[in-house]
Amino acid sequence: MVLLGVTIGDPAGIGPEVVLKALARIKVGPGTKFVLFGDTPVLKRTGLPAPEGVTVITSGIINNQAFPKGKANSLTGKAAYQYFLDAISFLKSGEIKALVTAPVSKEAINLAGFKFRGHTEVLAEKFGVTDYGMLFSAGTFRLLLLTTHLPLSGVSKEITAELIFRKVSLANRFLKSGLGIKNPKIIICGLNPHSGEGGCLGKEEETIFKPAIALLLKEGLDVSGPVSADSAYRIYCQGEFHLMVSAYHDQVLPLFKALYFDRGVNVTVGLPFIRTSPDHGAAFDLAYKNLADSRSMEAAIKLALRLSAV
Amino acid sequence: MVLLGVTIGDPAGIGPEVVLKALARIKVGPGTKFVLFGDTPVLKRTGLPAPEGVTVITSGIINNQAFPKGKANSLTGKAAYQYFLDAISFLKSGEIKALVTAPVSKEAINLAGFKFRGHTEVLAEKFGVTDYGMLFSAGTFRLLLLTTHLPLSGVSKEITAELIFRKVSLANRFLKSGLGIKNPKIIICGLNPHSGEGGCLGKEEETIFKPAIALLLKEGLDVSGPVSADSAYRIYCQGEFHLMVSAYHDQVLPLFKALYFDRGVNVTVGLPFIRTSPDHGAAFDLAYKNLADSRSMEAAIKLALRLSAV
Repeated sequence: MVLLGVTIGDPAGIGPEVVLKALARIKVGPGTKFVLFGDTPVLKRTGLPAPEGVTVITSGIINNQAFPKGKANSLTGKAAYQYFLDAISFLKSGEIKALVTAPVSKEAINLAGFKFRGHTEVLAEKFGVTDYGMLFSAGTFRLLLLTTHLPLSGVSKEITAELIFRKVSLANRFLKSGLGIKNPKIIICGLNPHSGEGGCLGKEEETIFKPAIALLLKEGLDVSGPVSADSAYRIYCQGEFHLMVSAYHDQVLPLFKALYFDRGVNVTVGLPFIRTSPDHGAAFDLAYKNLADSRSMEAAIKLALRLSAV
Repeated sequence: MVLLGVTIGDPAGIGPEVVLKALARIKVGPGTKFVLFGDTPVLKRTGLPAPEGVTVITSGIINNQAFPKGKANSLTGKAAYQYFLDAISFLKSGEIKALVTAPVSKEAINLAGFKFRGHTEVLAEKFGVTDYGMLFSAGTFRLLLLTTHLPLSGVSKEITAELIFRKVSLANRFLKSGLGIKNPKIIICGLNPHSGEGGCLGKEEETIFKPAIALLLKEGLDVSGPVSADSAYRIYCQGEFHLMVSAYHDQVLPLFKALYFDRGVNVTVGLPFIRTSPDHGAAFDLAYKNLADSRSMEAAIKLALRLSAV
């Protein structure tokens, strides 16, 4: 039995709408059960039909349809956070085996009085995991970030050969056991422009990336690099790679989002369960206009189902 | 009379081939004259027909067809550098009014004993220009870099409100007077992930970008931002902007090159003459195989002609 949990995200944003739209388009057999974390008045407020055969776990925080919409606020922030905490309880008890999270607003959750850095960080903490990775996936393009949410000026200090070795090893295991890719081919971007151009534009490629890559090769991984971030995509496509590794948040993600916005999925690798999410935010400006594109959520649910089936 | 100079770049790379291919495809009237900087044996070695009605200024450095090909070497590096110096003389004397440079190899020019950081830097120095900008153009997508060839760890220190104000003002003037865009709409990416997310992921957006943007608005420019680099392209397209400003080399350039590789043009703004170049390198691995794609060179020449016609 596949037991997949889905949070509906911040009720003031597009989360509830994209979850219901996506579930309406996904057909599953009797071996799959969806558990939705969110309040019924919120689902009703979307005007979309209730999904059939889906269990809804309500928080009771929003108990009528007169909640704030279209902006960050403490009430829906509190509700969004509670849906997430409820899903975590279900993961801990084994009542769900995989989780898809709809977008929340960090600002709203903070307004509700909780310190919240992101779904990934909370999950890692709650499950005592220190070694995890953020991976973006769309069709055959997959992108692992070595560092995520930190100021650009702190990126260089954060990247060590040990970090590269750990994160790439983790992603390699995910490609093999999660996606069933026998021999993953991985390409790694350098940190600096032109990948340092032989040391003229930065030393990290020589002192950090090359030793890490040598170590990964020694372990039998099929890794190449470091290469220039501005030619990595071309190399990726021509070389039929399975994963690109980028050094920091804005190095390749703008490209990923431009090319694959409507079907990108964020996967957390290294957790003791499956977790995916769509590659967009709560989009307050689009809420309750029936305009939100649910393809990214659909892709996130489908990938979670595929990973659950392994 | 439009007098356009074109260097053929490093004879060991694809420069000579893409120049000849591009010139063969561009039809100009009697009011336009091309001046090619490069040695005749190199042009012959491509196997492509000599262009008609084009003046060739030879350096004499390569005087037979037995020069090294397909790798960085001091002989062709020396020749490439001389073609460029000859073009600079012609610019100074007014014999050409605009310059298109084919790709050279920094490594090869350094092997030849010259310190060379890039075409743009040399041109700025030779013409006593301190205020210039690197702009990439492809159709209606244009990208200005606030910083270019420096290690990532140095980017944050380099960016000041004054630098943003100067570079964006320069690019705005180029859009107006060079391209004839009456009211350029400009969008500026922040430095940090999620554009700093209200100060949680870096302070530069608040302390540097916002004051600079306020100043630009006060001067009457139509600028927006700072925005997240990973959603800037979507905003750009939907908002029909004329220019995106990115903070550093690998922030948006990987996206630009993935989307527009075959027709991207690099324009230097702020020089006392017109200068463009294709958006690729000397590609030694492709040299003399008649495989090189000349569309980017063709676009560079066409843009130089368009800018010359203003």
